[in-house]
Amino acid sequence: MFPVDDTPLTRDGKMVILAYDHGIEHGPADFEDVPERADPEPVFEAATHPAVTSFAVQKGLAEAYYPSYEDDVDLLMKLNGTSNLWMGEPDTAVNCSVEYAREIGASSVGFTIYAGANNEIGMAEEFREAQESAREHDMPVVMWGYPRGQGVKNASKPAVITYSARLGLELGADVTKIKYPGSQEAMEDAVRMSAKSKIVMSGGSKTTDREFLEDVKATMNAGGDGVAVGRNVWQRDDPEQILDALEQVVFEDATVDTALSNTGAEGPTADE
Amino acid sequence: MFPVDDTPLTRDGKMVILAYDHGIEHGPADFEDVPERADPEPVFEAATHPAVTSFAVQKGLAEAYYPSYEDDVDLLMKLNGTSNLWMGEPDTAVNCSVEYAREIGASSVGFTIYAGANNEIGMAEEFREAQESAREHDMPVVMWGYPRGQGVKNASKPAVITYSARLGLELGADVTKIKYPGSQEAMEDAVRMSAKSKIVMSGGSKTTDREFLEDVKATMNAGGDGVAVGRNVWQRDDPEQILDALEQVVFEDATVDTALSNTGAEGPTADE
Amino acid sequence: MFPVDDTPLTRDGKMVILAYDHGIEHGPADFEDVPERADPEPVFEAATHPAVTSFAVQKGLAEAYYPSYEDDVDLLMKLNGTSNLWMGEPDTAVNCSVEYAREIGASSVGFTIYAGANNEIGMAEEFREAQESAREHDMPVVMWGYPRGQGVKNASKPAVITYSARLGLELGADVTKIKYPGSQEAMEDAVRMSAKSKIVMSGGSKTTDREFLEDVKATMNAGGDGVAVGRNVWQRDDPEQILDALEQVVFEDATVDTALSNTGAEGPTADE
Amino acid sequence: MFPVDDTPLTRDGKMVILAYDHGIEHGPADFEDVPERADPEPVFEAATHPAVTSFAVQKGLAEAYYPSYEDDVDLLMKLNGTSNLWMGEPDTAVNCSVEYAREIGASSVGFTIYAGANNEIGMAEEFREAQESAREHDMPVVMWGYPRGQGVKNASKPAVITYSARLGLELGADVTKIKYPGSQEAMEDAVRMSAKSKIVMSGGSKTTDREFLEDVKATMNAGGDGVAVGRNVWQRDDPEQILDALEQVVFEDATVDTALSNTGAEGPTADE
Amino acid sequence: MFPVDDTPLTRDGKMVILAYDHGIEHGPADFEDVPERADPEPVFEAATHPAVTSFAVQKGLAEAYYPSYEDDVDLLMKLNGTSNLWMGEPDTAVNCSVEYAREIGASSVGFTIYAGANNEIGMAEEFREAQESAREHDMPVVMWGYPRGQGVKNASKPAVITYSARLGLELGADVTKIKYPGSQEAMEDAVRMSAKSKIVMSGGSKTTDREFLEDVKATMNAGGDGVAVGRNVWQRDDPEQILDALEQVVFEDATVDTALSNTGAEGPTADE
Repeated sequence: MFPVDDTPLTRDGKMVILAYDHGIEHGPADFEDVPERADPEPVFEAATHPAVTSFAVQKGLAEAYYPSYEDDVDLLMKLNGTSNLWMGEPDTAVNCSVEYAREIGASSVGFTIYAGANNEIGMAEEFREAQESAREHDMPVVMWGYPRGQGVKNASKPAVITYSARLGLELGADVTKIKYPGSQEAMEDAVRMSAKSKIVMSGGSKTTDREFLEDVKATMNAGGDGVAVGRNVWQRDDPEQILDALEQVVFEDATVDTALSNTGAEGPTADE
Repeated sequence: MFPVDDTPLTRDGKMVILAYDHGIEHGPADFEDVPERADPEPVFEAATHPAVTSFAVQKGLAEAYYPSYEDDVDLLMKLNGTSNLWMGEPDTAVNCSVEYAREIGASSVGFTIYAGANNEIGMAEEFREAQESAREHDMPVVMWGYPRGQGVKNASKPAVITYSARLGLELGADVTKIKYPGSQEAMEDAVRMSAKSKIVMSGGSKTTDREFLEDVKATMNAGGDGVAVGRNVWQRDDPEQILDALEQVVFEDATVDTALSNTGAEGPTADE
Repeated sequence: MFPVDDTPLTRDGKMVILAYDHGIEHGPADFEDVPERADPEPVFEAATHPAVTSFAVQKGLAEAYYPSYEDDVDLLMKLNGTSNLWMGEPDTAVNCSVEYAREIGASSVGFTIYAGANNEIGMAEEFREAQESAREHDMPVVMWGYPRGQGVKNASKPAVITYSARLGLELGADVTKIKYPGSQEAMEDAVRMSAKSKIVMSGGSKTTDREFLEDVKATMNAGGDGVAVGRNVWQRDDPEQILDALEQVVFEDATVDTALSNTGAEGPTADE
Repeated sequence: MFPVDDTPLTRDGKMVILAYDHGIEHGPADFEDVPERADPEPVFEAATHPAVTSFAVQKGLAEAYYPSYEDDVDLLMKLNGTSNLWMGEPDTAVNCSVEYAREIGASSVGFTIYAGANNEIGMAEEFREAQESAREHDMPVVMWGYPRGQGVKNASKPAVITYSARLGLELGADVTKIKYPGSQEAMEDAVRMSAKSKIVMSGGSKTTDREFLEDVKATMNAGGDGVAVGRNVWQRDDPEQILDALEQVVFEDATVDTALSNTGAEGPTADE
Repeated sequence: MFPVDDTPLTRDGKMVILAYDHGIEHGPADFEDVPERADPEPVFEAATHPAVTSFAVQKGLAEAYYPSYEDDVDLLMKLNGTSNLWMGEPDTAVNCSVEYAREIGASSVGFTIYAGANNEIGMAEEFREAQESAREHDMPVVMWGYPRGQGVKNASKPAVITYSARLGLELGADVTKIKYPGSQEAMEDAVRMSAKSKIVMSGGSKTTDREFLEDVKATMNAGGDGVAVGRNVWQRDDPEQILDALEQVVFEDATVDTALSNTGAEGPTADE
C-alpha cells in the first residue's frame, strides 16, 4: 500500500477529489442547467480552491488545460471511462496509460471497476496492469468502485457497496470511491471492510447543500476519508461556497450546521 | 493538447481537410458518376489547391501516390477504416500504425470512433494507442466522431452529435470531425462542448454548392474551425471551383453569396 | 518440479496454509459472524502461529500489511480471484503478476483453475504464464484445483476431485489444493493421482473442530501433505486453539482426540 | 507502394504466379483426379518453367522443398490459410510470420482477406501487421482478395469483385488477386479501381485450356497484370503445355488461338 | 523441414513415441484398470525400453520425473492439452512454452490441432508460434492431427484423416500423428498426402496385441514412419512385451506373427 498520506492526493490524510469526467460518462446532458460549465476553464479554476486536494479528469482535458494549472492543481488522471450512448452491459475503455498520465503531470490515477458486470474480470485485469504500473511510478491508485451489471440487482444496497469497498482493499487500491450506502452505520461497515485502504464517498447527482454535506459528514463520522465530488460542486451556481463548506466538514471537523452558516450557504434551519 | 495551430494541418487555425477514403468505406459505388475520380491522381492534384490544408487517405494510397506529392500536399493518414460489404454492427479495422504513417510522410493522423456501437470500447482503446503514439511523434490527431450502432437510434440528432464533439475533447483528439447538426445553433453547442478541441464539419454526401457552403458558413459562424470534405469536392465536375469557394468562406470570412459569385459557381440568386 | 521441501512453504514436507482471500471471493458475508476479522491485522497475527507454514492473501492485503509481518509470516500470493457479485459461468481475474508478488515479498504463488468451466482453457494458459514465471523466480506454485462450471455437475464427486489432483501434477503445480473428497479412501486415490505433486485439503466452510480435524487427519493418513484453511481458523473465536490442534495433527501425527484434548478444544467425546 | 517491377515477383511488370496451397484450403479432394500431384515435387518442378514468375505455397511446403529449388524458383509465401473442414463463417489462420518467410527464402508474401465476413476486421488488422513487416523486409505483398461471408450474397458479382480490387489498393497491397468478374469490361472496372496496385486474375477451378486462356487474355486486355493459377496448371496432365501458352498470352501478347496452336494444346477451332 | 532423421526423435528414420498425457486428457478413468500406472515412475521406466524413441508428456510430469531419466529417455514435450471435464466444442490450452520445454530438456515438441473445430484457427495460430519457436531452438515438431468438432461429422472417415495428414505437411509439422484410417490402402493415401512430413499412427484405446500390431504393421507397410502409442503400452500388464514386439514390427520389419511369437505375447493363432 502506497503511503498516500505523504502525497498531494491527501491533506491530513483526507481528501476532497473534484471530479469532472462527466463529459465522457454522461455527455452534454450534465451541462444543460449550467451551460458555462461545459467549458473546463471555470472548473479547473474551482479546482484551485484550497479544499480540493486533487482534480480528476480524462486525458484530453488534462492535455488541453492542465499545463496552465500545474502549479495550482493536483492532477488525478482518470484512466478509463466511456460514453453512455450504448447502454447495455456496463464496460469501460482504458483511455490513458499510466506512463502517459505521468508524463502530462498526474500525481495519481483513477480506475473504474464495475464488479458484477460480465466484463468484471477484464476490468480487474486492466486494473492490475494500471496498478502495478502506478506502483512503478510511485503514484497512488484510486478505484471507482461501482458494482453494476448482470450480477447486481440493486447497486444501492449496503451489502453491495461494502463488498465494493472490500474489493478496493483486496485488489490494491489506495483509495476506493463508493456510493454513500444510505446511513452512517452502513458507511461504518464499508470503512471497516476497506481496512487500511481509504474510502471516499461518491458525490453523486446534485442535491441540496444540506443533504450533500450531511452525507459527507456521516462519511467522516464513520471513519471515511473524504469525498470525490463532481456535480454537487460544478453544477452549483457558486462552487466556491460548497467547497468552503467541504473544507470545514472534511478537514476542520465542523458540523453541517456550522459549515452552512459559516459559508453563507443555506441556513442551518432550512426545511427541505 | 497539441499546438495544432503551429502545424501544416491548419492555416490561421482553420482547416479544409480533403478526404478521399471512400474507396475503402463505400467502394466503387462512390465513383459511379465520376469514374475518372477512381484514379487517385486527379484527386491528389486537387489536394494541391491552396485551400486544402491536409489530404486524408488510407495507407495504400499514401504509399502509392504521396511520394509524388510530398512537396505540395500535407498528408493526414487515416489510420482505420473498413469496407461496407458487411453491414452489421459498425466496427472498423486499424490499417496503419502511427509509426508507419510517420515513415511515409504523414504529418497528422485520423481515427474513427463509432460511439454507441458494441465495440465502442475496443475502438476507444485502439484510439488511445494511436493517440499516445502520435504524441510521441508530435503528430496532431483528428477524430472522425461518428456515433453509430446499437446505442444510436438517430445519428443526426443534435444531442448525439454534440456528445460526439465532447468525446473528441475528453479522449484527447486535437480536432473532431462531426456531422453538421442541422442548425448553426446546434453547431454552437457542439463547438462549446469541444472547448479547446477543434471542430470540423463533415462534408457528407454530395449536395448543391449553395447548400454545402451554407453549412460550412454556419459552422464557421458557430465558432467551428473548418471542414473535412470529400464527395462535395471530388464528385464535382470542377473541384477547383468549390475549393476556391471554400477558401473564401473558411479562410476569408466571405459570405456564401460572395463566394459563389466570385468563383463563378451557381449565382447568388439561384433557386434550389 | 520445484524442491518445495527446501522452501518455507513447507515444514518437514508438510503444510498448513492459512488462507484469507475471502474478502474478494465471498465478500463481507464471510465476516458477518466475526466482524472483527474483516480487519486483516488479527488474521495476520494468527498467521504468525508456528503451525502456519504460509499465509495466502491477495495483492492488496499483502501490500498493506505484509511489510509489518515479513519477519514472522511466509507470504503465498494468491495471484487470481474474483468477486461473487456475478454468479454466472465461473471465471477469475489475474490480479497480481508473479514479478510484483516477488517484489513485495511473496515466497510462493497460488492460482485457481476452474476445470470444467467454459474458460478453463484461458485459465490454464494464464496458469502457464504464472507457473513459468514462478520457475524463473524460484517460487513454488500452489494450484487451487476447483472443478466448476458447465462441465461439472457435481464438484464434490470423488472422480472430479481426483481428476483435479491429477491436473495439478500434469500442469506443473508443486502443490494442489483440493476439496476433501468425502473419505480417506477417495483421498488416497487423489494423492495417488497427484504422484510427486503435493496435496493439501481445502478447509472449506466452517464446521466443528472435530469434523474439521478428522478430515485433516484422514488427509494425512491418506498420504496428503497438509491443509489450506481459512474459515475454519479465522471464523473461530479462538484461532490459536485450532492452530494448536492442526500443529499436532499435521506435524506431530497426533490423533484427533489427542489434539482436541491437548489443546483444550472441544473434548474427545463431544456429541455433534 | 513497393517497386514491384524491380522484384522477381514480376517480369516486364507482369506475373504468372503458380499457386499450390490447395492441400490446406481444399485438402485431398483436389488431388483425386491427379493423385501424383499430391506430391509437391512435380509441382515445384512445374514452377521452374520460365513462364512462372513466382510460386505460392504454405510454410510447410516451403520448408520441406524450397531448399532444393531456391536457385530455380521464386518463393511467394502464402502467410495465411485454413482447412475447409469447418465450413461456417469464413476466417483464416496466419500460419507463417513474415520474418520466418524471409528466413526460408521467400521474396514476397501473400495474404487472404475475406471482405464481407464477420472477421473481416480481424483479417485486415493481421494484414496490416504483415504488410508493414513486409515493408521492413522489402518484400512485395499480394492480397488474395476474396469477398465472402455474411455480407456477401454473390461473390461473383462484378460490383463485389471491383470493390475487392479497390481494397487491395487502399490497404497497401502491391498486387491483388481477384476472381475473373465475367467480362473484359468488368475486369477493366476492377483494374481502374485498383489504380497503381496490380491485378492478377485468380485461376479458379479447372476448365478447358481455351476458356481459361480467354479469361487470362481478357484480363491482360483489360489492363490486368497476369494470373495466379493453381488447378488450371497442376491438375492438367501436361502443366508445361498450359504454362507455354500462358507465357505467350501474358508476356508475348499472343492471341489465345496462336497460343493454343503454338503450344500444341487444343486447336484454335475446337468446340467446347 | 527439420532433418528429423538426425535427431533422437527417430531411429533409422522411424519412431515409437510412447505417450503418457492421458492424466490430463482423460483423467483418472484411464488408470482404473491399472491403478499402479497412475504413478509416472513405472511408465518412465517403460520409456527406457530401447524400442521407445521418445516419450511424450505434459510439462508437470517432465518437471517432476525427467531429471531422473534424462540419460535414458528422449523427451518430447506435449505443449498443449486439456481436461475432458468440459465436453463441448473441442479446444485445448497451451500449457508449456517451447523455451521452457527446451530448458527442462525436451528435444522435440508436440502440439494438437483439432481441425474442423470452431477454434481451429486459434489453435493453428498457436501452432505457428510454437513451430517457429521450435525452429529457432532446432527442435522437431510433432502434430497431433485430430480433426474434431462442428465441422467433423465422422473423425474416423479416411477422407478426414488424410486431410489431417496433409495439414501436418502444409503447416510445417515434421511428423503428424493420425488415427489409423481403417485400412492399409487408406493409410497409403495419408502417407502420400503428408509427402516429406512423417506419419505416425495413433495407438488409440487399448485393444489386443494382435489387432494393435496389425494396424502398426499396415502403417509401416503403407510407408508410415511408426507409432505414437500410450494405452496400448502402459495399460497392459506387461508393457515390455508389447514394446519388444513394436521393436520388431517397426524397426526390424517383422511380421505380426513373428513378433507375437518371438516376444511371448499371444500366439499367432489366437482367436479373438
